[in-house]
Amino acid sequence: MSLVVVGSVALDTVETPFGRAEAVLGGSGTYFSAAASLFHPVRLVGVVGDDYPVDELGFLRARGVDMEGLERASGPSFHWVGRYDFDLNTAHTIDTRLGVFADFKPQLPASYRDAEWVFLANIDPDLQLEVLDQVSSPRLVACDTMNFWIQGKKDALLRLLERIDLMLLNEAEIRQLTGKANLLRGAREVMARGPKAVVVKKGEHGAMLYTDEGVFFVPGYPLEQVFDPTGAGDSFAGGFLGHLAAGGVVDVEHLRRAMVYGSAMGSFAVERFSAGRLKDLTVEEVHARVREFRRMTHFELAERAGEALGSGIR
Amino acid sequence: MSLVVVGSVALDTVETPFGRAEAVLGGSGTYFSAAASLFHPVRLVGVVGDDYPVDELGFLRARGVDMEGLERASGPSFHWVGRYDFDLNTAHTIDTRLGVFADFKPQLPASYRDAEWVFLANIDPDLQLEVLDQVSSPRLVACDTMNFWIQGKKDALLRLLERIDLMLLNEAEIRQLTGKANLLRGAREVMARGPKAVVVKKGEHGAMLYTDEGVFFVPGYPLEQVFDPTGAGDSFAGGFLGHLAAGGVVDVEHLRRAMVYGSAMGSFAVERFSAGRLKDLTVEEVHARVREFRRMTHFELAERAGEALGSGIR
Repeated sequence: MSLVVVGSVALDTVETPFGRAEAVLGGSGTYFSAAASLFHPVRLVGVVGDDYPVDELGFLRARGVDMEGLERASGPSFHWVGRYDFDLNTAHTIDTRLGVFADFKPQLPASYRDAEWVFLANIDPDLQLEVLDQVSSPRLVACDTMNFWIQGKKDALLRLLERIDLMLLNEAEIRQLTGKANLLRGAREVMARGPKAVVVKKGEHGAMLYTDEGVFFVPGYPLEQVFDPTGAGDSFAGGFLGHLAAGGVVDVEHLRRAMVYGSAMGSFAVERFSAGRLKDLTVEEVHARVREFRRMTHFELAERAGEALGSGIR
Repeated sequence: MSLVVVGSVALDTVETPFGRAEAVLGGSGTYFSAAASLFHPVRLVGVVGDDYPVDELGFLRARGVDMEGLERASGPSFHWVGRYDFDLNTAHTIDTRLGVFADFKPQLPASYRDAEWVFLANIDPDLQLEVLDQVSSPRLVACDTMNFWIQGKKDALLRLLERIDLMLLNEAEIRQLTGKANLLRGAREVMARGPKAVVVKKGEHGAMLYTDEGVFFVPGYPLEQVFDPTGAGDSFAGGFLGHLAAGGVVDVEHLRRAMVYGSAMGSFAVERFSAGRLKDLTVEEVHARVREFRRMTHFELAERAGEALGSGIR
């Protein structure tokens, strides 16, 4: 039941209205692994430079993250420098130093190739396609992307869509990819190109899952303060796929619950800089937050039709 | 168990990307009555001019809306002229012809004064206060407002807050009223001033209920096309209070379900111009949509903690 993620393992320098963090652990592969490994072992594929503080990934190793696929190349690590203003929904990129990531060619170790669960984090869709060529018969492939690739590599992305099961996009991305302002129509358009499920991430407004069986919504967890939004989407994906892989079942009930585990992990990720909160987090805390999500969304239908109809008119 | 609404009974001329409607039924009192009367009789307080097509309100009368409180004054009726562009979340006002509404002084008929349930739709907060002076011992008073009054009549609004049970606001309004960007903090601030419950309406992103017992979320109903957003908020309020009044119980379960009935009514209201859809709507259709909301939000917790934890690490 192996779960493989291919993504960036980076350094982030982030400034928010609440403080600044310098060259801390970042990257989609890192956030995904930190979230998913609470539920299921993870096999990580990525590249770091010779300046990377590999020791700081020790907490991932302790949680069962296999790093055979983490290449160490000579040169500087990928380093993202960004800023959030009070509108924490928008990241302002100050500098993107790709370093060794510029030449990243994902190579899956032999032991990874029977992966059942695959997460293709946001990298060049041509590389995402190459990863798929290296896995023999995955059970579920999920994929993320960004505006840059939708703009510049749309053809590769459309070829990729034919080969994946689940696409994760934010609102702007699904509109850009499909040309549909309406999310329902956009999701249907994406599904017509291959994926059996589409997740639309709406930040503080929550997330939606579209499948043939309909729509499922999870609200954003109501935090009093979002400290640093970096990594929320990849932590969501980690909670989502980690939960699915742990259960080993892909049906509507498990997909729904995976949405909630994803949302819970995204909400924890933004409580501190870097993967700070995910590092300390226990599975029990996650379950407790999932129960909170349940309390925040569940209601009972009126016991008798008459109650809702009222005593008034017929 | 009488339910009284005080609000505008107006004419609307609306243009959307999908068409134009000229001098059609509009106004907060109208939308509220159309929605609430599906569940419970309504007593309407408002004013119309001598040009108003009163016959068109016949469907409300047939549903048990008492119009003794609907004053007919000499002069033109309140007429709102507005436009929505493709961003249907924002109404652009072209003209507001107050007509007889400029001198509106709500007078509750004697038979209305024992009202148990009161909805103060968006009018001058000084008038909302005067309405409260005319009801003897309401069980639940809910109130709406808008940016114009928060800006210009904040003191009256704060006095009003001390006397109401439930405040309905949209995101911009709660931020403007409380100065808090964070909705959780804003809701707490409003509740500190009196109301035991706050509803924050987020348009397509749904609605949230804040009470001492926590937060409850309802998503926006995923419509493929929002035809005309006018009246969504008042229809929400109508579904909410109509459901509460019909059940006759105010507890957490009923408030939660009222949120869903409100959301359902808001979603129907935007499917056509004016109150067109609310006019045709049956209670059965509303119940069916409420069941859809349940399918869109409910999930089961993992049967055994072990499933969510997975077979991997301990």
